[in-house]
Amino acid sequence: MTVRIAEIFGPTIQGEGALIGQPTVFIRAGGCDYRCSWCDSLHAVDSRFRHEWLPMQPDQVMAKVAELSGGQPLMVSISGGNPAIQDFGPVIALGRAKGYSFACETQGSVARDWFADLALLVLSPKPPSSGQVTDWDAFDACIAAAGAARVVMKIVIFDQRDLDWARDAQSRYPGLPLYLQPGNPEVDPTLPVSPQALADRMLWLVNETVGKGWLTPHILPQLHVLIWGNRRGV
Amino acid sequence: MTVRIAEIFGPTIQGEGALIGQPTVFIRAGGCDYRCSWCDSLHAVDSRFRHEWLPMQPDQVMAKVAELSGGQPLMVSISGGNPAIQDFGPVIALGRAKGYSFACETQGSVARDWFADLALLVLSPKPPSSGQVTDWDAFDACIAAAGAARVVMKIVIFDQRDLDWARDAQSRYPGLPLYLQPGNPEVDPTLPVSPQALADRMLWLVNETVGKGWLTPHILPQLHVLIWGNRRGV
Repeated sequence: MTVRIAEIFGPTIQGEGALIGQPTVFIRAGGCDYRCSWCDSLHAVDSRFRHEWLPMQPDQVMAKVAELSGGQPLMVSISGGNPAIQDFGPVIALGRAKGYSFACETQGSVARDWFADLALLVLSPKPPSSGQVTDWDAFDACIAAAGAARVVMKIVIFDQRDLDWARDAQSRYPGLPLYLQPGNPEVDPTLPVSPQALADRMLWLVNETVGKGWLTPHILPQLHVLIWGNRRGV
Repeated sequence: MTVRIAEIFGPTIQGEGALIGQPTVFIRAGGCDYRCSWCDSLHAVDSRFRHEWLPMQPDQVMAKVAELSGGQPLMVSISGGNPAIQDFGPVIALGRAKGYSFACETQGSVARDWFADLALLVLSPKPPSSGQVTDWDAFDACIAAAGAARVVMKIVIFDQRDLDWARDAQSRYPGLPLYLQPGNPEVDPTLPVSPQALADRMLWLVNETVGKGWLTPHILPQLHVLIWGNRRGV
């Protein structure tokens, strides 16, 4: 049973969310059930890149991870695309047996029993600016599937409407730690990113949340964009 | 019994370390037993600013925190200077009774029994570039005083020698989660900070750690410097 893999890269630092700054190897799954207007990973989403996605056996995936980490067990981040449309259970079982831990980021549209084997499940429902609509029943099923595993919610914010939506999402799940990050409008990997523009977006988001008395979400930027711009594989 | 306070400000986001991105009010204690060459908080360290440090009763401190947070209990970060040269036990007891949580950052030169009442104790021993020398017996006493409280180690890195020193510190305390952050050479609050220079320092530090197979520390920048430069009170 193979999984379709867009890329495996690292070790590098996790650039965003609850594990920000932590060394990790990324497994980026190919394929997605969403098509966000501002997607920054189209090479793992759009089916016109499908020929670049490599079908790999679980042992091949973990062999590549081990090669990259020099055999040191570390946190492995499974992203995409939406990794939950595939079965990563065997990869995770194999990796955990060798001392690796796993985090997975998904929009929460498909529940998987292997969520319970994660060190961290990041559910990132997509706000209105994405053009997508969240199925909250499916989202509930993802939380249930995670069982005792640590779960957080991460929402990318482009505008005021997204912020209002994030507040509603937090009201729906008051027990889930919430991470907000400014959206990245500069997704062309061939163009440089302005660190000043990234700083300005953070300032706006902090002012609109903490500055207005909303004190429960964590507010974090995308460090990888700050450091490397939109380059792939870092 | 009063404490000497250089400033109380916020709510803003915690800009660095294990709580990065979390909304917090800062209590900056006046006075320090160290004098790091690159200190970015001289207004809370150098005794020529002593007349600016306000002696406050614990209830006055918490009244100011509550005023700033609009009465919402949140994480309160006690920094300095070195807050451990004073007795913050009564402030913490008063705040916890009202639902606030406390983090404290100190170099680990003075142990306090109130460390055990913290949600997080950040021990930040100073590397060679600081010009300071760490008393590891005192540092051990700080860890012991924290008891069951969460403790992490944070080290500011300016150069390769600091990095080697941080590796030794990690060998000494393999059980302490380690956070590394690039030093900030631009400490003049009246001069602008270059976000690009900050990004470059992060790139250097990631390359010298994760890039060379050192996969255990978290690597994080100072977000407040990215967003606000060296301005005070944000």
